[in-house]
Amino acid sequence: MENFVFENLTKAYFGKKCVSQYLPEILQGYDDNVLLAYGGGSIKRNGIYEEVTGILKAAGKNVTEFSGIMPNPTYAKVMEGAKLARENKIDLILAVGGGSVMDCCKAVSLAAVYDGDIWEDFWMKAGTVTVKPVPLGIIMTVTGTGSEMNGGAVITHELLKIKTGRDYPALNAQFALLDPLYTYSVPKRQMVSGSFDSLSHMMEIYFSLPNEDNVSDEINEALMRSVIRNLRKAIGNPEDYTARSNLVWASTMAENRILKLGKKTDFECHLMEHQVGAYTDCNHGCGLAVLHPPYYRHIYKDGLPKFVRFATEVWGIDLSGKTEEEVALAGVEALADFIKEIGLPTTLWELGVTDKKQAEEIADTCFLSPGSYRKLTREDIRAIFAAAF
Amino acid sequence: MENFVFENLTKAYFGKKCVSQYLPEILQGYDDNVLLAYGGGSIKRNGIYEEVTGILKAAGKNVTEFSGIMPNPTYAKVMEGAKLARENKIDLILAVGGGSVMDCCKAVSLAAVYDGDIWEDFWMKAGTVTVKPVPLGIIMTVTGTGSEMNGGAVITHELLKIKTGRDYPALNAQFALLDPLYTYSVPKRQMVSGSFDSLSHMMEIYFSLPNEDNVSDEINEALMRSVIRNLRKAIGNPEDYTARSNLVWASTMAENRILKLGKKTDFECHLMEHQVGAYTDCNHGCGLAVLHPPYYRHIYKDGLPKFVRFATEVWGIDLSGKTEEEVALAGVEALADFIKEIGLPTTLWELGVTDKKQAEEIADTCFLSPGSYRKLTREDIRAIFAAAF
Repeated sequence: MENFVFENLTKAYFGKKCVSQYLPEILQGYDDNVLLAYGGGSIKRNGIYEEVTGILKAAGKNVTEFSGIMPNPTYAKVMEGAKLARENKIDLILAVGGGSVMDCCKAVSLAAVYDGDIWEDFWMKAGTVTVKPVPLGIIMTVTGTGSEMNGGAVITHELLKIKTGRDYPALNAQFALLDPLYTYSVPKRQMVSGSFDSLSHMMEIYFSLPNEDNVSDEINEALMRSVIRNLRKAIGNPEDYTARSNLVWASTMAENRILKLGKKTDFECHLMEHQVGAYTDCNHGCGLAVLHPPYYRHIYKDGLPKFVRFATEVWGIDLSGKTEEEVALAGVEALADFIKEIGLPTTLWELGVTDKKQAEEIADTCFLSPGSYRKLTREDIRAIFAAAF
Repeated sequence: MENFVFENLTKAYFGKKCVSQYLPEILQGYDDNVLLAYGGGSIKRNGIYEEVTGILKAAGKNVTEFSGIMPNPTYAKVMEGAKLARENKIDLILAVGGGSVMDCCKAVSLAAVYDGDIWEDFWMKAGTVTVKPVPLGIIMTVTGTGSEMNGGAVITHELLKIKTGRDYPALNAQFALLDPLYTYSVPKRQMVSGSFDSLSHMMEIYFSLPNEDNVSDEINEALMRSVIRNLRKAIGNPEDYTARSNLVWASTMAENRILKLGKKTDFECHLMEHQVGAYTDCNHGCGLAVLHPPYYRHIYKDGLPKFVRFATEVWGIDLSGKTEEEVALAGVEALADFIKEIGLPTTLWELGVTDKKQAEEIADTCFLSPGSYRKLTREDIRAIFAAAF
């Protein structure tokens, strides 16, 4: 295993009714001014808004609302939240939602106390967070990004058309309330794309150096199998609590840094998807579903032993009578078949990229990264985008 | 998954040379009076003492030594450490060693600031830690207990002949330095029994309710396979860094609370072993090795599906032509064979229990616990001890 430093300062409260059970007590630990942050208002339709505001009111908090946080949250939206936080002397930001709300609020928690330009100083270059961000708490309503238990935040600069993320331990939420029941009202498409995002995190960590026996890889295989199995169950019965609870916790585990320990990680597919998202504003999980198979078809020969292991351990591909390359490719095709089975898109066209020229244009904005198995050149990325069209 | 609350406040520094790389910087965060705690002095023979005291001296710390912490640390030893900590106004306890040193120091960190009797108030009954323990840091030299990343401490009251543990989140070390190279000089017997202790933690968590698809169980299987595989490699070549680093991290993962999430756990075999330890002062891993096979032979029919899964997923037992009971028992026998293969004892007699009457006497001091698969009666425990004699 490679050397690492690990810490995770988020306290996670997991399970049925955890919000009503724990939030009142948690709120006693913070001063009165709360910024209640959420997205497009689905929490007003499913009763979560009412429950949370009731608890805040009973706790005597002064609530400022920060709503309308969009998918692929923008830098402008972050600045709006930071202004609200400063003006209202916010003591606690309470983010109620999925990855977009959580990520936006992490950036707000920093921007509200930082005098410089957070985009330039923390997202475009990796800075060191020496200021003390506004305390953040999370109530998760959509699973997938795993943002609830790390300091990662992906922000889109809408003018520059750049979507990019960083993970700063100082931006971890202080607490995260994860009630699988809250995910029941999420539409099927969003549940599926969220869980594919989880699976993608696991794969991106798995397909990276070093190529050695590493307990983190074996834990990762367990999580990948669990997501595949439980997503099938949850599609069959969206109110299967066992399946939904496993999907929630596997998603958190994928991104609470545990799987990355002892490993280098590159997240090349995420980096490519971020640019598709910046141009088309597509759903993140859908973008990943489109790009993963062509990306892996392009690189599997460069990481052959790991792709063979992926095929046998995650997809149960039988080795007999096949070459290593055939086994490895069968694993990638099993992934592609799974994407079709769960109803996610398989082409850039479905994401709104309407001609090949535009696909190439987006490909050319992707960052080149060293990559664990293959250093992707501009031509490699163009070829992947052409295959995904 | 069952509801849970998870937090882990220990910052882990893992890998080659992590002590010289990080300790100087870490020490800057603490005031000057350091209690340097260690065991029987092996750290003076392998160079670790010299390295650590050199770093403490360079950092200008006032060092008080607290040495001679024995295996199965006693309540009296804890009181000795607490007295030293109070008299010297200790700002940081630095525990250098394995599980015994870590556990003793956690208890010292609490006893040094608590005015009552910690044995009565925290070990005999589960108290709530409302005082602020003296900050604790760990430099791990022997792997196995996983104590480096939790608040657990097992203490033996030598007069009452009771050995028992509790896990208080407030007793987590603030930092833990885990260098697999430090474990190279550990004698083979101790390496093997330590790793068996890890495997035992995993099994005790695995064989517990609820009986449902739980991602924690699948992660657990990955860790059990890793320990079995890497312990074989490390016995073959004690300086196989990959094997040693996997053993260290798997041991930490077994007890940093991750595997327990969504599960009830009972640790019945540990509870029985604690009493063997209290009477014979035997090595903890050796005691567990003796008790596990007879314990599982006694209960496997009560948890048949889980024992079948253990047999196939952890030991690769082939199902064909066997009844479920035969498969389950084959898994338990594979475990028993592994214990022989790695050279651990298989009878209470080898631990110093010299007659059957004494075995029964110890059995009668074991706490009766509800147990996930079988509520062990006094007769059950006597039968297990008789089979282990």
